Amino acid sequence: MNGAEAFIGTMWNCGVEVCFANPGTSEMQLVAAIDKQDGMRAILGLFEGVVTGAADGYGRMADKPAMTLLHLAPGLGNGLANLHNARRAGTPMINMVGDHATYHVHFDAPLTSDAEAVARPMSDWVRVSKSERDLAHAGVEAYNVARTYPGKIATVIVPADHAWTEGSAAIEAPLLPVAQVSPQEIIDAAAEALRAETGSKCLFLGGRALREETLILAGRVAAATGARLICETFPARMQRGAGRVAVEKLPYFGEQAEAFLKEFGTVVTCGTEPPVSFFAYPDKPSWLLPDGAKLIRLASLREDAHMALAGLADALDAPTENISTQERKIFPVEDGALTPASIGAVLSELIPENAIVSDESATAGMYIYGLTEGCEPHDWLTLTGGAIGQGMPLALGAAVACPDRKVIALQADGSGMYTNQALWTMAREELDVTTVILNNGSYAILNIELARVGVENPGPKALSMLDLKRPEINWSQISEGQGVPAVRVSTTEEFRKELAKALATKGPRLIEALI
Amino acid sequence: MNGAEAFIGTMWNCGVEVCFANPGTSEMQLVAAIDKQDGMRAILGLFEGVVTGAADGYGRMADKPAMTLLHLAPGLGNGLANLHNARRAGTPMINMVGDHATYHVHFDAPLTSDAEAVARPMSDWVRVSKSERDLAHAGVEAYNVARTYPGKIATVIVPADHAWTEGSAAIEAPLLPVAQVSPQEIIDAAAEALRAETGSKCLFLGGRALREETLILAGRVAAATGARLICETFPARMQRGAGRVAVEKLPYFGEQAEAFLKEFGTVVTCGTEPPVSFFAYPDKPSWLLPDGAKLIRLASLREDAHMALAGLADALDAPTENISTQERKIFPVEDGALTPASIGAVLSELIPENAIVSDESATAGMYIYGLTEGCEPHDWLTLTGGAIGQGMPLALGAAVACPDRKVIALQADGSGMYTNQALWTMAREELDVTTVILNNGSYAILNIELARVGVENPGPKALSMLDLKRPEINWSQISEGQGVPAVRVSTTEEFRKELAKALATKGPRLIEALI
Repeated sequence: MNGAEAFIGTMWNCGVEVCFANPGTSEMQLVAAIDKQDGMRAILGLFEGVVTGAADGYGRMADKPAMTLLHLAPGLGNGLANLHNARRAGTPMINMVGDHATYHVHFDAPLTSDAEAVARPMSDWVRVSKSERDLAHAGVEAYNVARTYPGKIATVIVPADHAWTEGSAAIEAPLLPVAQVSPQEIIDAAAEALRAETGSKCLFLGGRALREETLILAGRVAAATGARLICETFPARMQRGAGRVAVEKLPYFGEQAEAFLKEFGTVVTCGTEPPVSFFAYPDKPSWLLPDGAKLIRLASLREDAHMALAGLADALDAPTENISTQERKIFPVEDGALTPASIGAVLSELIPENAIVSDESATAGMYIYGLTEGCEPHDWLTLTGGAIGQGMPLALGAAVACPDRKVIALQADGSGMYTNQALWTMAREELDVTTVILNNGSYAILNIELARVGVENPGPKALSMLDLKRPEINWSQISEGQGVPAVRVSTTEEFRKELAKALATKGPRLIEALI
Repeated sequence: MNGAEAFIGTMWNCGVEVCFANPGTSEMQLVAAIDKQDGMRAILGLFEGVVTGAADGYGRMADKPAMTLLHLAPGLGNGLANLHNARRAGTPMINMVGDHATYHVHFDAPLTSDAEAVARPMSDWVRVSKSERDLAHAGVEAYNVARTYPGKIATVIVPADHAWTEGSAAIEAPLLPVAQVSPQEIIDAAAEALRAETGSKCLFLGGRALREETLILAGRVAAATGARLICETFPARMQRGAGRVAVEKLPYFGEQAEAFLKEFGTVVTCGTEPPVSFFAYPDKPSWLLPDGAKLIRLASLREDAHMALAGLADALDAPTENISTQERKIFPVEDGALTPASIGAVLSELIPENAIVSDESATAGMYIYGLTEGCEPHDWLTLTGGAIGQGMPLALGAAVACPDRKVIALQADGSGMYTNQALWTMAREELDVTTVILNNGSYAILNIELARVGVENPGPKALSMLDLKRPEINWSQISEGQGVPAVRVSTTEEFRKELAKALATKGPRLIEALI
């Protein structure tokens, strides 16, 4: 078999089942190899940001990597923003980036470009294949890297001649790397700090600490010590809703976050790093914990969060019963014009059990998040890296990973435009995704940020950079143009009716909420 | 003034008048500085590939740089593909990439990323500002680099604190770099080779050699020596049409190009490098000139093409009269179903004098290009770097540079999807662009390439990666959803009527040609 077939066969042996793809000429041999690999699924995206975002959504839900197939350095470039988000999420992912045949590079043809250099800033690991035989080895290594707890971004550059040259063979699946465990000394120190009588305490949680079973451990620690449970502002995947251990979310704006954290004398972090401001602002702090707070890093994103919290619960001899859990809460729906608050209220009633929510709702989401805490239990995925244009691709990939679960994408209009091509793939694959576009005709967050960075009295030219109303974007037309049925709504009643209908029906649908 | 104001003021002093922008929080001070700079135009794009592609179109037509404003490494990443194309085109361009405040970087907030590393592969020059005072100096240097003949991509990374800190001042405009001129020895060698009686000869032209006045020099050389005039397959900007010196275009596919070039014993290149195959293919050559051909590199992209050809014409004592020029040619329009050939025929009649054509028509364009050679004189811009998603942004930027000229974007459907957000900016700025979507529901080029790289009997999974029909894309809806009036046509008569109407009216319009 040729190098491409050996590579794809190796990936299959590792258990990789899905490839999100946007191939070009230099990837045709990899396309042919996927074609020959029975069972492997190939899903076309019409833009690379869709491809990498979808692989992120898949990886977060499947806890194993999908592949992406990308066309040289420019194609990879188009996928970088969502690779950045995936890397911040600790998502397992394997990128195959086709490149010119090795002997063709020195001719400097128009597409000649440095794929390795483009890959490096947004990958945890990059490897250029050395030969048709080496390509399969690169695949095994990539798989091992991608499966490093909780997940990493591994990128393999595939010269076209390595793909098409005969004389290679697929490799069997490798052993998986084992997650690092926090040392007992750290666990004991955390237990001691939380046991102390003085001051207010919290567990600051992120990463894999936010899964249902791990949150039960956090809930036990809270019950034993009175520590509050707080999570990072943008978790990769949070299991929340009625019956689960509830976690408060750190506010986005630095000054709010700082005020929120002010009371804590003891902070134990698990699955993430201590909180910092998202951006810097003149005369505002970047570090958000109060001066003199005792900080114990129980586990970073890379140490096993479940084992760390299990150890901590043990050390505290924490109770296993009477753990505080979230109650089912439905907020009353206000009649009339649609607002973020009324959308949140409708969602509090309608998000179905076991749904997956991809949240890129930006400013509108500040209301929605709180109102949905008492929904039926569900998974909540967020914009981990702040590179907008992630919400719909993420929903797409989550739907591929979990075909039996309803996926809801809460999508801000401005952010949604970056990767609107995700809609086409949702239609093509008949994915069970309900996309709610929160159309306020504005980069609303920037209107706030403009003042926060100290710009006073912005003129019309500055304000025009934040305005999406001239012309108005009609998302329903964009959606239907890509094969996803769509409807525009502007009242709470209409929204409730259309959302209920979409959730009751399988398949992709878009609701454009004019707020 | 603060660093941002000093930087923008410096750019204005240099003569930079337009900024294509997609800013975020870390760029708010730069937005405010543009706001305060009277006369400087800020044009919002809803995706960074639109922004960089537009700056490329502007630079090709204005022969001076526009700025772009991009949000950290992920925003820059989204713009890389069209930076790649712009770099290949030798376009002058200055990118401002905002970054976290210097003191904020070590906190590793979610958007922390290595903008310099992402910039480097697709920039000719990258500079990170060192302070609020240094920022303006970086701007001057960037301008000088961008104006290096015929143009370069200069990228400045702007930490937010350098932008907002007071204590800087704008710098006056710098002297411009002077273009390198080919040495007389090379000119004499080219003259001698072309003067020789033996064998067939050609001038292989690209870059700035394809401007009207320079082509007259090439025409004189052709008249004096019998050399054929051939141009690179993907020129940045070619001035062609009735009354101008005609140039044959090298075919795209390597084997056709090789056959085309087979007869030449002498090849003189000017404004570009010797032709090579776009991609490598098994058992096909990358180098396209025949063995033993005498090759003289008169001028690369970076040497002054006009001076080189003027020197060559002088050395040959070439005639100034009776230069062969293109005659006006209108091809008869076939009635009935729309085809690339019938579109070409309609265009041969209707492309107006002084129009600008942005050609990303892919397979359909192989017909259209030849049929439009005898149009009224016009400028033809192509996909210089092969990174698709360039056509509509390029048209947008060209229209900003040349508000009194009609711009026509010939846009393949698959490629157009990557940067469909360009339509919104066309609507917002009321740009005089007629976009013709060549909708064949396929990555048609890949159907050809699949066979050419040696894939035999591709299965349904492979073929599905090249198919855009499931679901069909309705470009008219996508266009109207972004504020550009649109119409679908499927017959030659309808196309002719709608194109004539669009060309007779100012403002953006889209014609979806179902072929």
